[in-house]
Amino acid sequence: MESWKLKTRQLVGHRYFVNAVMLVILLNAILIGVETYPHFREDYPGVIQGFEVFFLWFFTIEIILRVFAEKKFYQFFYSKWNIFDFVVVAGVLLFSGTYFISALRILRVLRVLRAVTVIPSLQRLVTAFLKTIPSLGTIMMLLGLVFYIYAVLGVMFFGEISPEYFGSLHLSLVTLFQVITLESWASGVFRPIFAESPYSWIYFVSFILVGTFIVLNLIVGEILNNIQEAKEEEQKDDKIEVSKQELAKITNEISELKQLLMKKEQK
Amino acid sequence: MESWKLKTRQLVGHRYFVNAVMLVILLNAILIGVETYPHFREDYPGVIQGFEVFFLWFFTIEIILRVFAEKKFYQFFYSKWNIFDFVVVAGVLLFSGTYFISALRILRVLRVLRAVTVIPSLQRLVTAFLKTIPSLGTIMMLLGLVFYIYAVLGVMFFGEISPEYFGSLHLSLVTLFQVITLESWASGVFRPIFAESPYSWIYFVSFILVGTFIVLNLIVGEILNNIQEAKEEEQKDDKIEVSKQELAKITNEISELKQLLMKKEQK
Amino acid sequence: MESWKLKTRQLVGHRYFVNAVMLVILLNAILIGVETYPHFREDYPGVIQGFEVFFLWFFTIEIILRVFAEKKFYQFFYSKWNIFDFVVVAGVLLFSGTYFISALRILRVLRVLRAVTVIPSLQRLVTAFLKTIPSLGTIMMLLGLVFYIYAVLGVMFFGEISPEYFGSLHLSLVTLFQVITLESWASGVFRPIFAESPYSWIYFVSFILVGTFIVLNLIVGEILNNIQEAKEEEQKDDKIEVSKQELAKITNEISELKQLLMKKEQK
Amino acid sequence: MESWKLKTRQLVGHRYFVNAVMLVILLNAILIGVETYPHFREDYPGVIQGFEVFFLWFFTIEIILRVFAEKKFYQFFYSKWNIFDFVVVAGVLLFSGTYFISALRILRVLRVLRAVTVIPSLQRLVTAFLKTIPSLGTIMMLLGLVFYIYAVLGVMFFGEISPEYFGSLHLSLVTLFQVITLESWASGVFRPIFAESPYSWIYFVSFILVGTFIVLNLIVGEILNNIQEAKEEEQKDDKIEVSKQELAKITNEISELKQLLMKKEQK
Repeated sequence: MESWKLKTRQLVGHRYFVNAVMLVILLNAILIGVETYPHFREDYPGVIQGFEVFFLWFFTIEIILRVFAEKKFYQFFYSKWNIFDFVVVAGVLLFSGTYFISALRILRVLRVLRAVTVIPSLQRLVTAFLKTIPSLGTIMMLLGLVFYIYAVLGVMFFGEISPEYFGSLHLSLVTLFQVITLESWASGVFRPIFAESPYSWIYFVSFILVGTFIVLNLIVGEILNNIQEAKEEEQKDDKIEVSKQELAKITNEISELKQLLMKKEQK
Repeated sequence: MESWKLKTRQLVGHRYFVNAVMLVILLNAILIGVETYPHFREDYPGVIQGFEVFFLWFFTIEIILRVFAEKKFYQFFYSKWNIFDFVVVAGVLLFSGTYFISALRILRVLRVLRAVTVIPSLQRLVTAFLKTIPSLGTIMMLLGLVFYIYAVLGVMFFGEISPEYFGSLHLSLVTLFQVITLESWASGVFRPIFAESPYSWIYFVSFILVGTFIVLNLIVGEILNNIQEAKEEEQKDDKIEVSKQELAKITNEISELKQLLMKKEQK
Repeated sequence: MESWKLKTRQLVGHRYFVNAVMLVILLNAILIGVETYPHFREDYPGVIQGFEVFFLWFFTIEIILRVFAEKKFYQFFYSKWNIFDFVVVAGVLLFSGTYFISALRILRVLRVLRAVTVIPSLQRLVTAFLKTIPSLGTIMMLLGLVFYIYAVLGVMFFGEISPEYFGSLHLSLVTLFQVITLESWASGVFRPIFAESPYSWIYFVSFILVGTFIVLNLIVGEILNNIQEAKEEEQKDDKIEVSKQELAKITNEISELKQLLMKKEQK
Repeated sequence: MESWKLKTRQLVGHRYFVNAVMLVILLNAILIGVETYPHFREDYPGVIQGFEVFFLWFFTIEIILRVFAEKKFYQFFYSKWNIFDFVVVAGVLLFSGTYFISALRILRVLRVLRAVTVIPSLQRLVTAFLKTIPSLGTIMMLLGLVFYIYAVLGVMFFGEISPEYFGSLHLSLVTLFQVITLESWASGVFRPIFAESPYSWIYFVSFILVGTFIVLNLIVGEILNNIQEAKEEEQKDDKIEVSKQELAKITNEISELKQLLMKKEQK
């Protein structure tokens, strides 16, 4: 590796550098918070713009340094975290000065999420969370199926009685999401429909029973799964270790014993 | 087995056949979704009807083929999944052209559930869910008892104060289901009654405490039960296997040792 | 034991007797359900009264028989289930003909709960539930303390802003129960207070955090505790049994071996 | 230790002393409850003030005694419980007679929490709860991040549509807390915004999915963690003990056997 590459790597991995990045992310977070107060935005427009320009330069240079610190520059993109960092920083560069102001503003807010990339414990936690998602694939497919069928039935049965909630397939899906969180499912959604369609309780009660049952399995089941897998892994390990030690001691003694007997026999 | 039977079986089990069925189920799902938008229903009535006729023929032929692929045709009905497939497809055939239009429409929507039959991982998940139900028998009986008693008491105490919620036994049961989901139990149901009947809080608080306690046992308890049973089964197996291996090694060495001694003695 | 006592005992324990009691409890349950419909109550007053008199006699005689079936009659009251049966049946006898009509009606409804006494699986379930309560003592004391302190603070802070919810200590306690179930805590209780008292969010947010944390520990923790204790008990038993067998085999072989050696030495 | 110190220590640790303190805390609790009823406050002002003066003296003397019972008086402040006791009692002394009447009143209510200090089982429970908090650090940081980002986005997107809920950063945070408890998130917060901003469902649905997922991990995960750690600790201990005993027996027998063989060889 060329020596300037090595030096960049040392710089990028240095405690001060990492801390500086964290600090700038924190400042960025504070600024976007402060900006939400209109009077501040109006009174100190220069301060905000000044900081924003500083953040833009700082993060751009940081990413460039980190790209150059890699052996081959494309290796930087092997890590999903680096891709996220790159997209968020490059996106702001791309959109600044254009008319995509709301995309720009969202990206500036998302830059705060870079804290996850920078703080190792946060990164580990999020990685653990993301890993649980694929194992939920089948159960989420089932939930999707149930949602879809009930949404279609909802439009069929209640589309005319309650157009606000079941007027179309997408409204129906949003309503079912509300129902599954149990929020105003009765007082808001069900009771007015119940007044006109006396058998509607079958639809709602069955959806809540089936839906919450699946969601419960989805949430509790899978989370516990992951938590306990980890723990049992650990626990199993040291239990076997203990007994292996003990058993090794016995087998050793026995083979010693056998060798003694062998020797005697040869005599 | 006759050769045409064997060929039908090969056809029915073929990857392409299964994928084609999945595709048609998906198309069916998309169509029933699209149909919920009235303007589409009105603008392309031919497309919808055309597809519907195609689905009808496709699923009918598919079921017939699968029936014939069995050694004896009645063996097809040994599987509950096949019965479900048959009922859903035959039902549509039966009702189409009659006046049972809403039954027909529901059956067409339920055909989407055939995805569960066709996709093995979904089928396994649903089977696992259905298996947990019998073990919940006793606790559901208890919940039913509590619901029934509180429903009767609800009509007795609040039937006149709040006829919308406790006017009759079935209204009372629906209301108690709402209360157990904690949806507007206070703001909607309890507070207006509380204003007139100062001791009504005993009824509601006790029902929520008892009811949520039972439901919690029902849900968390039994689901965890099933999840952990499976896991402990697994875990136990390989723990025993490990120690059995180790122990077998010891016992082997010991019997070898004994044989050595025996031989010596015989000399 | 006298022979008539033995015969009573045989009668009381007989399958037909138990089934008859179950049937009458079921009939009682149906009747109290049917009675909630006023038109039925008005149209067939004789039927209801007739059945009620029959239930009264039947349950009275049943209890008397079961009391006499015991060696000493007071042993009947050793079981809490018997006491419940006795109180419910004797209570109806006591109040019938008096002016305590609502107590009488509640007791008649509670007679349905005798199903728990009669059906063994239900009885076991309820016993298991009741057993978990004492272990919750400390945590319930803590919850009571938190409720009490927040209720007093609620009256102090919001008694005048929101007399409906925090007007007095008992109203405050009912409101806190509503808040802990998260029902309309914001839309109903908090938002109107928040409009006048900007720091009220500290009270509500802290109560919800502390309260739900304790309730969660109360519910999830203790239930899981009990479920898993039972399962681990089981599991531990057969794991030890397996390894004990295996270990016994080894130790046996070893002592056999030792005896062989001993014998040889004596020669 | 001087003899008067020893005597103070004996007094402070005496069962009667502890019970007396508990009794006074209970009386204090009852009094602050009774005080919330205005008519009582007006009818018996003397009684309340009398008790209050008594409590002030009693608790002051109790703390002084407990301070003097320590070897060095500053050792009293080694325990966090003692610091709490001291602050609550000294605070009342400090503020009484000043204009900080609401601080004084809150402190008098908080004195009831001293029950936690005095009752050992409660103290253990609260200690156990407090111990779980640090392990939640990372996940709480993540939750804070998600809350902050969504709060900023909320003000950006809905600040003008719904100023009551998203008018400023702190209102937005309070609203998100309400949304995470699922209380009126749809009927109160989301539906009015949805009527004007058709893509707002993405914001709410994603926040609920991400938020509840994190909260669930926070709550269920960590609590279970702690519960099961304790249990596995226990369970592991006696499993190893059993097998260690058994294994010790084997190894003993084997070494005995080896010594026998050795002896024979030496002959």
